[in-house]
Amino acid sequence: MPESKLKYEKRGVSASKEEVHAAIKHLDKGLYPTAFCKILPDIAAGDPGYCNLLHADTAGTKTSLAYLYWKETGDLSVWAGVAQDAIVMNLDDMACVGCTDDIVLSSTIGRNKSLIPGEVIAAVIKGTSDFIDTMRDQGVNIHLAGGETADVGDIVRTIDVGFTAFARMKRSKVLVNQIREGDVVIGLASFGQATYETAYNGGMGSNGLTAARHEVLSRVYAEKYPESFDPSIPHDLVYSGTRLLTEQVQVDGRNIPVGKLILSPTRTYLPVLKELLAQYQEQIHGLIHCTGGGQTKVLKFIEKVHVVKDALFDTPPLFRLIQESSGMAWEEMYQVFNMGHRMEIYVPEAIAPSVIGIVENFGIAAKVIGHVEACSKEQVTVASPHGTFEYQ
Amino acid sequence: MPESKLKYEKRGVSASKEEVHAAIKHLDKGLYPTAFCKILPDIAAGDPGYCNLLHADTAGTKTSLAYLYWKETGDLSVWAGVAQDAIVMNLDDMACVGCTDDIVLSSTIGRNKSLIPGEVIAAVIKGTSDFIDTMRDQGVNIHLAGGETADVGDIVRTIDVGFTAFARMKRSKVLVNQIREGDVVIGLASFGQATYETAYNGGMGSNGLTAARHEVLSRVYAEKYPESFDPSIPHDLVYSGTRLLTEQVQVDGRNIPVGKLILSPTRTYLPVLKELLAQYQEQIHGLIHCTGGGQTKVLKFIEKVHVVKDALFDTPPLFRLIQESSGMAWEEMYQVFNMGHRMEIYVPEAIAPSVIGIVENFGIAAKVIGHVEACSKEQVTVASPHGTFEYQ
Repeated sequence: MPESKLKYEKRGVSASKEEVHAAIKHLDKGLYPTAFCKILPDIAAGDPGYCNLLHADTAGTKTSLAYLYWKETGDLSVWAGVAQDAIVMNLDDMACVGCTDDIVLSSTIGRNKSLIPGEVIAAVIKGTSDFIDTMRDQGVNIHLAGGETADVGDIVRTIDVGFTAFARMKRSKVLVNQIREGDVVIGLASFGQATYETAYNGGMGSNGLTAARHEVLSRVYAEKYPESFDPSIPHDLVYSGTRLLTEQVQVDGRNIPVGKLILSPTRTYLPVLKELLAQYQEQIHGLIHCTGGGQTKVLKFIEKVHVVKDALFDTPPLFRLIQESSGMAWEEMYQVFNMGHRMEIYVPEAIAPSVIGIVENFGIAAKVIGHVEACSKEQVTVASPHGTFEYQ
Repeated sequence: MPESKLKYEKRGVSASKEEVHAAIKHLDKGLYPTAFCKILPDIAAGDPGYCNLLHADTAGTKTSLAYLYWKETGDLSVWAGVAQDAIVMNLDDMACVGCTDDIVLSSTIGRNKSLIPGEVIAAVIKGTSDFIDTMRDQGVNIHLAGGETADVGDIVRTIDVGFTAFARMKRSKVLVNQIREGDVVIGLASFGQATYETAYNGGMGSNGLTAARHEVLSRVYAEKYPESFDPSIPHDLVYSGTRLLTEQVQVDGRNIPVGKLILSPTRTYLPVLKELLAQYQEQIHGLIHCTGGGQTKVLKFIEKVHVVKDALFDTPPLFRLIQESSGMAWEEMYQVFNMGHRMEIYVPEAIAPSVIGIVENFGIAAKVIGHVEACSKEQVTVASPHGTFEYQ
């Protein structure tokens, strides 16, 4: 096991979740087992032409970083970002099956009341409402059903923020991944500033945060905030980096504090995907949200093809910073982080320019980052300036 | 502030959740603001005759007790109970608005992977499937959509188990609390053994677990399992009781270990309420799930009436044990624990005998525990052998 992978395990995180998959393997896989999300029959209304989705996800350990940054600076705005992180982890998975509108949301927040005051809960909830308003302006309708906030300091060290999302949609609109030889892969940038974003986005998403936090940040935070990590992690793996949260880094001519750069709220691609699906539903052979597993995520959704990614975006500043701080092997960086694009679209080459044009209209960089070849097995190659890596 | 209340606050728990209510007070209250759960328009299918519910809740700190018991005994079955706890906290709230069938469920589990192995996750998921099977046998259809299991040791000390539930129902079937002068209050026992339960149920539910755990259990668990509580709780309030988890207590002639008695899975009243609503929908003026707030929960759902509870069930052995161990004031016991019935039904006196008969057919004790009087304000009186207490 490479050293960095070992670190990952010692910090109690598993990118591949073998145990979890073993525990759920006997459960029903839904109507379309190869779809990106589980699709249920229309339990809500019993119409055979429709189906239902109920999807859960959380901001993961990104809340721990938000906690550190808020404690250091008093900046409550990071909690709005955490709400967005947890929401988008749901929405963008659901968009990968073609669900881009009329979504009902509910939150599940667990907090340690002695550390997380009401103003933080208020900021998370306000962040939720504001994000819903932003999406409404983009023609995407999301409805907040409510949620549960539990005071569970004996369970939660600081705060855990999750959302669950429901949607009902026409079965004819469901996108089931059928990625095939000849497809090109269009990557949608995770960094930069979309027309519907208010600041530069470092591109973080909500995966790899345990590694990023511990590898980048300085040991000073271990002494100061023991509540922000698992005390059973070996001491030398806790905040083993060199950076301070408020240290400025230069990104595209802007100065951004390191903490805020990593905390960039997970970008949603929903407004973009809604427009793309309206125009190109039939020609889109696959939509992959590059979350856990990063650039290898697609491996779970292909059959006997080889996805060659040989024209990725230049590694954005955020991921360079994480790699420089951590010394993590590049091979593993591509498995943990999105490395520049968090959404990929598999289409015939002919429509690629038009798809890219639509994405760019939203202020999001997009490009053909690879292609699909026939193969006797399932394989992903990342050919990058940092090396060529094979994943199976 | 009474001493026990102060303890409650110092352990980071708030029965009244003032801060949370302040944070959400500006949010839309749904179609029926006085209903037990928030009711949304029919976002799923857009039919004005229907509505939607999306409801979230967790097992709270009951998972910490399950963790202790499992560590001490190796008994994995307690994790099935935890799944049931989190599910029933949703279902029985939803039943209070008349929703008793065709419910979609999704789980959100956060774990510390170094402490909670895959077999625990498997037990939680198996417990979920088994509970769904039991309900199906009772004519209640629940569908598991899936869920998220996150490895977040930096956030979660041991394990957090939550569920979110969706349902669509006819508006004409929605029960909105309209509790009025002359109603009698029928309590449905939380203890005993329902026909669809496999063992004696102590009646715990999923509220008051932080208090029960710390007040009843011996200090030995503080030394042995520091991961099971918030280290910022004052030392003298951590496991400040005298009992051992495996110590047997006599309950109705059975010997039950203390840990298992407190861990009794939250009873669902869904099969009972489904039958009652089918027969008496029009005559039921109120359904109250006595969760946070215990016997005072109804205060949030009344207007200018006085609920007099003067014939409660004899305090069941579990709650006697908690009171004896903790010395908690009886006045507060009724605000923290259900004290014998976790569901109450408000009906005209004339149908009470018939309602009670239906409940008893399920092996659940039921009786008229009080009545409703006109009043200039909202008030609850508990008149018990332990004293008479007024709540407003």
